Amino acid sequence: MRVKIGLLGLGTVGTGTAQILLDPWGRNPILKDIEIKRVGVRSPSKSRQVQVSPEVITTDLEQIVIDPEIDIVVELLGGLEPARSLILQAIAHKKHIVTANKAVIARYGDEIYEAANQAGVYVLLEAAVGGGIPIIKPLKQSLGANRIKSIVGIVNGTTNYILTQMTAAGADFGEVLAEAQKLGYAEADPTADVDGWDAADKIAILASIGFAGRVKREDIYCEGIRQISAADITYADKLGFVIKLLAIAEGSKGDDSETLQVRVHPTLVAKDHPLASINGVYNAILVTGEPLGQVMFFGPGAGAGPTASAVVSDIMNIVGILKSSGGQPQGLDPLLSVTHQHYCSLTAVEDLKTRFYARFLCQDVPGVIGHLGTCFGRHNVSLESVVQIGYQDQLAEIVVVTHEVREGNFRQALGEIEQSEAISSIPSVLRVL
Amino acid sequence: MRVKIGLLGLGTVGTGTAQILLDPWGRNPILKDIEIKRVGVRSPSKSRQVQVSPEVITTDLEQIVIDPEIDIVVELLGGLEPARSLILQAIAHKKHIVTANKAVIARYGDEIYEAANQAGVYVLLEAAVGGGIPIIKPLKQSLGANRIKSIVGIVNGTTNYILTQMTAAGADFGEVLAEAQKLGYAEADPTADVDGWDAADKIAILASIGFAGRVKREDIYCEGIRQISAADITYADKLGFVIKLLAIAEGSKGDDSETLQVRVHPTLVAKDHPLASINGVYNAILVTGEPLGQVMFFGPGAGAGPTASAVVSDIMNIVGILKSSGGQPQGLDPLLSVTHQHYCSLTAVEDLKTRFYARFLCQDVPGVIGHLGTCFGRHNVSLESVVQIGYQDQLAEIVVVTHEVREGNFRQALGEIEQSEAISSIPSVLRVL
Repeated sequence: MRVKIGLLGLGTVGTGTAQILLDPWGRNPILKDIEIKRVGVRSPSKSRQVQVSPEVITTDLEQIVIDPEIDIVVELLGGLEPARSLILQAIAHKKHIVTANKAVIARYGDEIYEAANQAGVYVLLEAAVGGGIPIIKPLKQSLGANRIKSIVGIVNGTTNYILTQMTAAGADFGEVLAEAQKLGYAEADPTADVDGWDAADKIAILASIGFAGRVKREDIYCEGIRQISAADITYADKLGFVIKLLAIAEGSKGDDSETLQVRVHPTLVAKDHPLASINGVYNAILVTGEPLGQVMFFGPGAGAGPTASAVVSDIMNIVGILKSSGGQPQGLDPLLSVTHQHYCSLTAVEDLKTRFYARFLCQDVPGVIGHLGTCFGRHNVSLESVVQIGYQDQLAEIVVVTHEVREGNFRQALGEIEQSEAISSIPSVLRVL
Repeated sequence: MRVKIGLLGLGTVGTGTAQILLDPWGRNPILKDIEIKRVGVRSPSKSRQVQVSPEVITTDLEQIVIDPEIDIVVELLGGLEPARSLILQAIAHKKHIVTANKAVIARYGDEIYEAANQAGVYVLLEAAVGGGIPIIKPLKQSLGANRIKSIVGIVNGTTNYILTQMTAAGADFGEVLAEAQKLGYAEADPTADVDGWDAADKIAILASIGFAGRVKREDIYCEGIRQISAADITYADKLGFVIKLLAIAEGSKGDDSETLQVRVHPTLVAKDHPLASINGVYNAILVTGEPLGQVMFFGPGAGAGPTASAVVSDIMNIVGILKSSGGQPQGLDPLLSVTHQHYCSLTAVEDLKTRFYARFLCQDVPGVIGHLGTCFGRHNVSLESVVQIGYQDQLAEIVVVTHEVREGNFRQALGEIEQSEAISSIPSVLRVL
């Protein structure tokens, strides 16, 4: 039995995918039963790194998603449209879907899964999070026996590269970003990466699977790394931390309720924490569950080869199911499909309980530290340390680390502190893992 | 549709498994469709940490594996017999098998898989390697698009705990082993762990899956950690390494041949290597493939909860397949079953190409280093460094690190060096990753 696929897009990941499929030697033998029936591209005459026979290539993407001979549509266009419409149209024509498109799933996952469940087809998306790292399938299948407590990940390679370089070179954000753009690790418009949106898309997907509920993408608290300075990295280092952009989903289950906190922000991570040593463009995802404890998945979070590896693993998964059912699966495997329909109730960031790091520039007058302590105390914010760390432009630089406090209280205290004459500015406020 | 399971064994892992199955709240809802039909134990009156209704418990294990109502037999007895016979009998009665038994699969996997494929049932064993870490299923499914190049793992928690403690405390093997036995991290008879046999069972299983061929367990080169001294750990540290017991499978594919090297031995690992920071009872497995690059899986390698998490994930996997096929799968999913029948050709350890670390105790006479260099050179062993590191009992202590050399040549050189009068002894020879 041969399974026919239609490929939408022949960019970096599409090319990597076709390269694996056209060169199955030494890989899982199931690949030999897969045929690329059609490849949809924008510019058919463009020269490419892979030899796809010209008669397979078309610019008519719709023709692919309705082709009765195609079993699996592999969407590698990226972006919201026409990806969303083509996926929905393919589902309506009973095609299984494999996609690497985190943006479309994070925003339209509900609509897409609902359509897929009605049509009895799979929508697999291993490549959407963590590039080549197997995380979606392990989370669905291997960790499903657990009560998931948290998912904490470094899921954006660009920002991890920038923070790693800033740490290694003591350089500021702007310089390192420019260098990363030169090297191709950051895009010309780096917004989606450096402002945390890409990481938010990914944690929306992971949270939805791990906590078995829908997550509204727009409710995710999201803070990027533009404001991180070389000074903060140095002070964090002195305190025993590195700064990482973390995507975090934490659940707390009461007897009849379940609340979820989903957020993306730069975070101080203790140097002996497993995520602290994940450097460069690598990604890692740490999952905590009961009774499992902690497992971590580490690997290349982007790139043609790793992402194509994940795309092809999803194709293989569907081919395996088709082969074992003579091409006609009677129903969907509940561990591979996504059937939850309720929305997780997300806690507002004000109710987050976390430790904070904050840096203040103050007039160098007696009593400033006492004043800070009093303000924080008034709002129930308990301090772990207050250290005057140096001088800058004749202002005293003071770094505060709190115990675990409610974010709302901390913000109120900050608001009050900002008003005081002795405080010139608050250049940075960061959470501590 | 409810799926009925029979549990063989209610020890640590059996109890953990029953605890998850009897308390499904907050876990994957598929668990609610699983019923523990029978539990086979040796002493039914023993008090246990889990409430299984007494009428479910039996001492007649055979009755379980032939029970027509049971769909899945979960073998958690450990050891070779009666585990092997009961598994084969269960397969003959068309039961799917879930097992945590690395010893039985490493030795009798061929017989068991052959029977299972004929009967059309699955044999899943996620818990057999890496405890709660998802590695078997990712290797079968998620990484299958790759040409696997190597699998390198810290897969035995006991020895990793011992080496970590030796490194932290500067203590010798004997002391730390005694302490580990007191803490329950090592067994009264620690042979299977400290001599590397358990790690060899596990790498046999991983190699067989990753390289899609049978691996003869008895052909695996296996060296334990008994001979590691505090001195070696100190010298390794000075040279920038930590010592880890690694299980390694490395393939090299020629145009018409494929050879595999599978081995377990203590190894010097560079401190910035991802495996160097895996400490205590944790396990980690690093897989290198093309086009993926490297991914690492890290987590708790043993313990009731983690191992039970893996056992239950396998049960869930089969339940998912049964549910999606109305209880009657038409065939086996080729990605989940093990169908290869050829044996991998294993390279002899003499043909291994690796770097070496060796420590010599020599008479403190001029020309000793020159003599060492000449002997090694005669056998084509190129040296990276030769350092006289100190004195011990009036003998000079010399540490040699080689470039990558053929093990056979290195051993011949060592044999010649041992004969020289100037060399008193060679207390340790270790490979370098």
